[in-house]
Amino acid sequence: MTSMSWAEGKPIKGVLLDISGVLRDGHEAIAGSVDAFHKLMKSGLEVRLVTNESQVTRQGSSDTLQSLGYQGVLLENIFAPAPLLAKELLKHGHRPHLLVHPKVKPEFDAVIDQISQSEGETDPTCVVIADAAEYFTYESMNTAFRILLSMQQKGLDPKLFTLGRGRYYKENGLLWMDVGPFVTALEYGLDIKAELFGKPSPVFFHTALSSLSSDGEISADEVVMIGDDIIGDVQGAMDAGMRGVLVRTGKFRPEDENHPTIKPSGIVDNLASAVDMILRGCNTN
Amino acid sequence: MTSMSWAEGKPIKGVLLDISGVLRDGHEAIAGSVDAFHKLMKSGLEVRLVTNESQVTRQGSSDTLQSLGYQGVLLENIFAPAPLLAKELLKHGHRPHLLVHPKVKPEFDAVIDQISQSEGETDPTCVVIADAAEYFTYESMNTAFRILLSMQQKGLDPKLFTLGRGRYYKENGLLWMDVGPFVTALEYGLDIKAELFGKPSPVFFHTALSSLSSDGEISADEVVMIGDDIIGDVQGAMDAGMRGVLVRTGKFRPEDENHPTIKPSGIVDNLASAVDMILRGCNTN
Repeated sequence: MTSMSWAEGKPIKGVLLDISGVLRDGHEAIAGSVDAFHKLMKSGLEVRLVTNESQVTRQGSSDTLQSLGYQGVLLENIFAPAPLLAKELLKHGHRPHLLVHPKVKPEFDAVIDQISQSEGETDPTCVVIADAAEYFTYESMNTAFRILLSMQQKGLDPKLFTLGRGRYYKENGLLWMDVGPFVTALEYGLDIKAELFGKPSPVFFHTALSSLSSDGEISADEVVMIGDDIIGDVQGAMDAGMRGVLVRTGKFRPEDENHPTIKPSGIVDNLASAVDMILRGCNTN
Repeated sequence: MTSMSWAEGKPIKGVLLDISGVLRDGHEAIAGSVDAFHKLMKSGLEVRLVTNESQVTRQGSSDTLQSLGYQGVLLENIFAPAPLLAKELLKHGHRPHLLVHPKVKPEFDAVIDQISQSEGETDPTCVVIADAAEYFTYESMNTAFRILLSMQQKGLDPKLFTLGRGRYYKENGLLWMDVGPFVTALEYGLDIKAELFGKPSPVFFHTALSSLSSDGEISADEVVMIGDDIIGDVQGAMDAGMRGVLVRTGKFRPEDENHPTIKPSGIVDNLASAVDMILRGCNTN
């Protein structure tokens, strides 16, 4: 992995921003981030929000940002795992069993409508797991487990899609287990491997990249991802050929600066510093 | 691993029996097992029950067996992970946080008493996880997670003891997730490895072996373990130098007969067949 400064290389044309830990920390905007965001939006660079939030719809996510002062966030510019997976499920005619938070269920409405309109089989063909938080119960875990086990026993592929592999996150001053541990529990119980929709999956970054390119060609090496998660944001983006910049806000921990294998393209104090560097770089190129 | 018939080798002097899937299936005795058990008890061979049950006390386990017609089961002849771990915790002055089923908590009474009598620190020094069943909630998992994370953040060893690694079991006609998936969830969330008390840990089998030897020397190669779990019972016993015999009752599945790496010392229909073979072997040696 390159240790080249992130300001080197091709000029930056597209910027991907993580939401939690970069724009906001729980229910508060991160200091300086609102102004930095607006400066970036006015710069003419293409900006997209790339989040692993799987506990809310994009609408919910956008409403929260607006309430914190962020202007000009368009729904179609938020890339979250749930709507992308929903599109895939529709395309392949899947009937998912959803082990997800009720707040994110509306993203799957079109899939559920398709099932209720068809008159064929009704057994689930896959399980979708996301950050269900307090809806992770022994009962809900066993239900998902039994559905997958019964597929396995019928000789079918026990398909498990996960909207993330995060270990934990901070919210309201407390640390909370994310979807990662719970999907790992099902994987162990069934001896299977879930398919990831979300960061750090390169497929997920490529989807955001194609959207950036819709108004003209932008290649991966002209894009920078800014996030607080050294694996999900930084490594994921770099694996997809982009630059990956780590901010010292959100879930950042000092030991991330000396990660044994991941060397970010850059490490900066916060979004404000990152935006300053990007805009300076753009002016000089 | 040897493929020698289990009737070959030194004469058998000690017999270890799994409980669930060998003596009983949920709330029913397995056909023929009550008589076979009594025959074995009268044979003069040393018999111990070796179980990974971590949802009940030994007393509860023994009461259930008695209600199904099993006579002569002594508490001190039941080897279960909880009382063994409790002894270890006492010895090392540990203050455990218990993520276990309320029904098994009495096994830890002495440990809790010791803590309440001391006047020093009260923070837990380890977490114990067992088959907590419906007590596995998002809240209880997060509590255990935060205790371990805070040890990690203080530079302490985040000690996690588990009373098993079972994937699932059958009870009342349904399959239920066992402790394995939930301990794996914590391991993933914290990037740590739990320490196992229970089958297939060789230490656990050796403890049962020392008890067998208390009235005279019995070595591992004079002992046979009979169980329905090809990993927990058969591989565990064989790794400890014993013979491991698989029964076709309980959670046995036909594919276990052709396991890619584990070749049991023998595979028999049920406990009755196993006891017949043992007693025949004893007579001819």
